[in-house]
Amino acid sequence: MPARIDFQTEPSRYRHWKLKVSGSRADLILDVDENGGLFEGYQLKLNSYDLGVDIELADIVQRLRFEHPQIRVVVLQSGKDRVFCAGANIRMLAGATHAHKVNFCKFTNETRNTIEDASETSGQKYLCAIKGTAAGGGYEMALACDHIILADDGNSTVALPELPLLAVLPGTGGLTRVTDKRKVRRDLADAFCTMEEGVRGSRAVKWRLVDQSVPNSKFEAAITRAVQRLTNATARPAETTGIALTPLERTFEHGAIRYSSLDVDIDRSARRATLTIRGPVTAPPATTGDMQAQGASFWPLRLARELDDAILHLRANEPEIGTLVFKSIGESGRVAGHDAFLDANASHWLAGEIQHYWKRVLKRIDLTSRSLVAMIEPGSCFAGTLAEIAFACDRSFMFDGALKGDNRAPAALTLTASNFGSYPMSNGLSRLATRFIGEPESVETARAVVGTPLDASDCERLGLVTSAFDEIDWDDEVRIFLEERASFSSDGLTGMEANLRFAGPETMETKIFGRLTAWQNWIFQRPNAAGAEGALKRYGTGVKATFDPKRV
Amino acid sequence: MPARIDFQTEPSRYRHWKLKVSGSRADLILDVDENGGLFEGYQLKLNSYDLGVDIELADIVQRLRFEHPQIRVVVLQSGKDRVFCAGANIRMLAGATHAHKVNFCKFTNETRNTIEDASETSGQKYLCAIKGTAAGGGYEMALACDHIILADDGNSTVALPELPLLAVLPGTGGLTRVTDKRKVRRDLADAFCTMEEGVRGSRAVKWRLVDQSVPNSKFEAAITRAVQRLTNATARPAETTGIALTPLERTFEHGAIRYSSLDVDIDRSARRATLTIRGPVTAPPATTGDMQAQGASFWPLRLARELDDAILHLRANEPEIGTLVFKSIGESGRVAGHDAFLDANASHWLAGEIQHYWKRVLKRIDLTSRSLVAMIEPGSCFAGTLAEIAFACDRSFMFDGALKGDNRAPAALTLTASNFGSYPMSNGLSRLATRFIGEPESVETARAVVGTPLDASDCERLGLVTSAFDEIDWDDEVRIFLEERASFSSDGLTGMEANLRFAGPETMETKIFGRLTAWQNWIFQRPNAAGAEGALKRYGTGVKATFDPKRV
Repeated sequence: MPARIDFQTEPSRYRHWKLKVSGSRADLILDVDENGGLFEGYQLKLNSYDLGVDIELADIVQRLRFEHPQIRVVVLQSGKDRVFCAGANIRMLAGATHAHKVNFCKFTNETRNTIEDASETSGQKYLCAIKGTAAGGGYEMALACDHIILADDGNSTVALPELPLLAVLPGTGGLTRVTDKRKVRRDLADAFCTMEEGVRGSRAVKWRLVDQSVPNSKFEAAITRAVQRLTNATARPAETTGIALTPLERTFEHGAIRYSSLDVDIDRSARRATLTIRGPVTAPPATTGDMQAQGASFWPLRLARELDDAILHLRANEPEIGTLVFKSIGESGRVAGHDAFLDANASHWLAGEIQHYWKRVLKRIDLTSRSLVAMIEPGSCFAGTLAEIAFACDRSFMFDGALKGDNRAPAALTLTASNFGSYPMSNGLSRLATRFIGEPESVETARAVVGTPLDASDCERLGLVTSAFDEIDWDDEVRIFLEERASFSSDGLTGMEANLRFAGPETMETKIFGRLTAWQNWIFQRPNAAGAEGALKRYGTGVKATFDPKRV
Repeated sequence: MPARIDFQTEPSRYRHWKLKVSGSRADLILDVDENGGLFEGYQLKLNSYDLGVDIELADIVQRLRFEHPQIRVVVLQSGKDRVFCAGANIRMLAGATHAHKVNFCKFTNETRNTIEDASETSGQKYLCAIKGTAAGGGYEMALACDHIILADDGNSTVALPELPLLAVLPGTGGLTRVTDKRKVRRDLADAFCTMEEGVRGSRAVKWRLVDQSVPNSKFEAAITRAVQRLTNATARPAETTGIALTPLERTFEHGAIRYSSLDVDIDRSARRATLTIRGPVTAPPATTGDMQAQGASFWPLRLARELDDAILHLRANEPEIGTLVFKSIGESGRVAGHDAFLDANASHWLAGEIQHYWKRVLKRIDLTSRSLVAMIEPGSCFAGTLAEIAFACDRSFMFDGALKGDNRAPAALTLTASNFGSYPMSNGLSRLATRFIGEPESVETARAVVGTPLDASDCERLGLVTSAFDEIDWDDEVRIFLEERASFSSDGLTGMEANLRFAGPETMETKIFGRLTAWQNWIFQRPNAAGAEGALKRYGTGVKATFDPKRV
C-alpha cells in the first residue's frame, strides 16, 4: 500500500486511459496497465480496475468539462481485444481492509455520478460501446453512460456476476441503475444478477440492459450514428477555449496540509482535523474574460479543487480522524461578491462549471462518513457558498460577540442567492430546504435577509446554527462537544449521520449511497464474503466458498 | 430460547399489555411483566420489551381493527410509575444471535407501521401520553402515534440514547421518523440522538419531538381534549359490531405446518419451504351480512391470517430455509369471485379491513429476506389477490400446457381489479406498476385482459411471469434454478433482493427497511457494538466499551 493515496493526477501521468479529442467528440479508451496497480499483490488483468484507475477516470471527466468545454460526446471503449472491462479487481478487494473497500466503492460511485452530472448539467453526453465482456464494475461503468451499444458477435456480454461469483453485491450503483435508470423488470434483473455468464445480443436489448445490439460489421457505423444523434441533441458553446487545471499548490507536513486557500491541521491524538478556509483576498474579476484569464487560480475554483482534494485525502489516508471541523478566515463581503459574480454570469460556461463543481464538492462533504462541525468565529467569512459548508455539517457552533483583546469583527453569517438552490444535495433539495423540512416558511424568512450579515442571535433565531455561545462558555462547550463526539462508536456515528443528513425525497443517488452502500458494507463484513472460507478469498483457488446458510 | 416462537396470542394470554375499551376510546396500558421474557437470561425491567411484548402489541392493533371497529382513538400509556418504556431490552439484545436481532427489529418495525396504517386507512388514531422516560424503542413507539403528549414534570423525557449508550442505532424507525415524520431539524436531531439524557418539557415541543408538554395537574385534561379532537377528526362506523379473530386452525408436524387453507412443506436438506395455498371451496357470500356471519372463517381473511402466521414462523424459526416456493390449488373463478365481492363492498368496514390486511400480508412477503418463487402449475388458482403473491416473488415459473395423464386444466393466471392498486407496496406503487416501471404501457395492456384466464404464452407475452416451460423442460429447469439459488451466499441474496424488489419512489417505509435496517444490520455485526469489548456486551458492567476508531 502506498504511503499516501494521491487523488491528483494529470494526462501525462495516465497509465490506464487514453483520451483523444477531435472537434466536439472525445474518445476515451480504457487500456489498463496490468502492472500499474496502486498496491502490491495483484495484477490488473482483463482491464480490471483499482482506485488508481478510477482516480484517472475522475480526472478525465473533470478535465473534459474545464479544459475541453467544446466536447459534446464522449465515446468510451476498451483498448483490449475480447474484453471491455472485468470490473473491480478481485485480488485487490480480497486483500484490502474493510475501510479501503468501502472508500473505494464510495469514490467509484461518486465518479459514475460525475459522468451523469456532466451529461445532465453540462451537456457532455457519454456513449459506451462494448466489445467483449463488460462484467461487474465494467457494466456499471456503461450504466453511468447515456447510451450503450453492445457488439452482437457471440462473445460480447454485459454481466453483474458479483453475487454468484463473489458473494458480494455490484458495488458501484449497478443494482440501483438496473432497476431505476434502465428500469429492467425486477424478475429479469434478478435473473441477470444471478448469472455468471451475463446476457448478450438482442436479449440484452429486450431486457433493457443495453440500447443497441449491433453486429461487428456495423459497429463503427452505429457508433458514428449514435454520436451524431447525441451531438445534435445537446448544446455546448462551439467556439470555446477551456482553461488549464494546473497542479494544486499544496504541501504535506506531518500534521498538516497547506493549500493556497485552505489549511488542514490534523490532531491525531484528538482524532480531529480542522479545515480552515481562507476567503478571497481580492474582489471578483470585472468580466468573464478576466475570470477566464485567471483560470485555475480564480478563487472559487481554486478553493473547490483544494477542498475536494483535502476531503478525499482525509477519507483515504486518515481513517482514524473522526471529526472534521470547518473554519474560515476572511471578508464575507468578498465571498458574497464572488457568489454574485458567478450568479450574474451563470450562463457563461466557466461560471456554470464552477457552480456545478461546488455542487459536487458539497455533495462530497455530505457523503463523507466523518462527523462534520462548523465553528463560526470572529474574523470568519461564512457567506453564501461558504455558509453552505456550515449547512452541510452535522452541527454548527457560533461565537456570540467579540473576543476580548481581539480587534476582529464579531462572527457573522451571510446568506446569498447561492444558498437557495444553486447547490442541491443528493436528495434534490437545497441544504436549507432539507434543514427546514418541518418548517418550510423558515426558508422564506431566511431568503428575506439575503445579503445581511447575521450575528449569533440572528442566526439562532433563524435556525441557521445549532448553538451560539459567548466568550465565557465557548471553549468549554466546544471542547465538551468534541471530546464527547470522539468517545462514540465510529460505526454508530457513520450509520446515524447517513440517516439524519438526508431527510425528504430520495433519488438514485441517495438510494446508491444510503441503501445499496449500506447493504454492501454489511456484506463486506460477513464471513460468507470476507471470511477465510468466503467467496472473495476463495475466488480463483478452485475451491468453492463455504457459506453459512442462515438468512438474515 | 423457546423451541418455537409463536406469533399467535389472544387477550386472555397477554402478560404485558392491558386493553380497556369504552365507547369509541380504547386505553392501552404497557405494564411489562419483568419475568415474562420470551427467552431465559434477562428480566424485562423498566417496561423494556422483547419480541414477546411486541407480538402482543401486534395482536392488539389487529384485534382493534377487526374486533372493535367502533374505536376511533387509542390512548397509549404506561402502567409503571416514573417510566414510560425503556425500549428494547439490552440484555436480550446482547445475548441474541445476529439473525434474531435483525428479525426482532423487522417485526417491531412492521408493528409500528401497522399502527400508522390503522390510523391512515382505518381512521383509528393513536395518542401517546408519556409520563416518565420514553427512551429508545419507547420513544419510537410514541413516534408511530399520531399525537404525543409529554408530561412537564421535570422527570419525563423522550430520548434516543442508543448511539451514546450502546453504539447501535435506534432500530425501530426512530431516525427516519425523527427526520421525515416529525421533521426535526437535522442538527437538532443529531444533538438529540447523541444525548443519553434526552429532552424534556418545552424544548421537546420546540424541537418538534412531541406535540404537547403539559404539567401533571393538567395531564388527564389534556389527554381528554386531544382524544376529543382526534375523535372528531376521524370517521368510523358508529353502530358496528366486530368479528372475533378466533384461534387459527393449524398443526405443526416435523416437516410441515397444516392450516385450513395453506400447507407449508419444509425440505430442510434443500433449505426450501413450499407454501401451497388452497383456493376457496365455495362462491363468495351473497351479502355483507353473510360475510360478517362467516367472520374469521371467511376464506380471504382466514387465508391472510394463515399466510401471515406462516411467514412469521418461517422467518423466526427456520433461519436456514432460504427459498420460499408459492403454489396454489383451486378454482381461479372462485378466487376472482371473492376479489369482486370485496371490491364491490369495499366501503363495508369488514371488506375494507380484509383488503387492508391483505395489503399488509403482501408487504410482509415483500420484506421477507428469503428468495421468493411462484410456481404456476396445472390446477393452480393464481387469480387476483393470489396472482399478487406471484408478483411479489423474485421469479415466477409457469407450466406451459397440460400435464400428460393429468386431467387438471393447464396453468392459467387471471388478473382482477385487485392487481391494479388495492395492494400498494411499501414504495406506494402497485406490484404491476413496479414490475413495469420501464414500460408503463404494459400495465394498461394487462388491465385490458382483467378477468381472462391467461395461459403460459399469454403470460410470457404480457411479461407477467419470468419464464414458461413445457412438460419436457419443467422439471429440469425448476430443479436447476432451485439448486443454484440454494448455492448462493445467504447475505448476498438478502442484499440483492432488498435492492431489486423496490424500484421507483421511496417512502418512510422503504427508507426504514431499505436504509436504516441495512445500516443497523451492519452495525450489529461490528465489534464496536457486538464484540466482546463492544458496547452491547459492556453495557451495565461499569466498564466502558473499547472502540476501533476507524471511520468507514
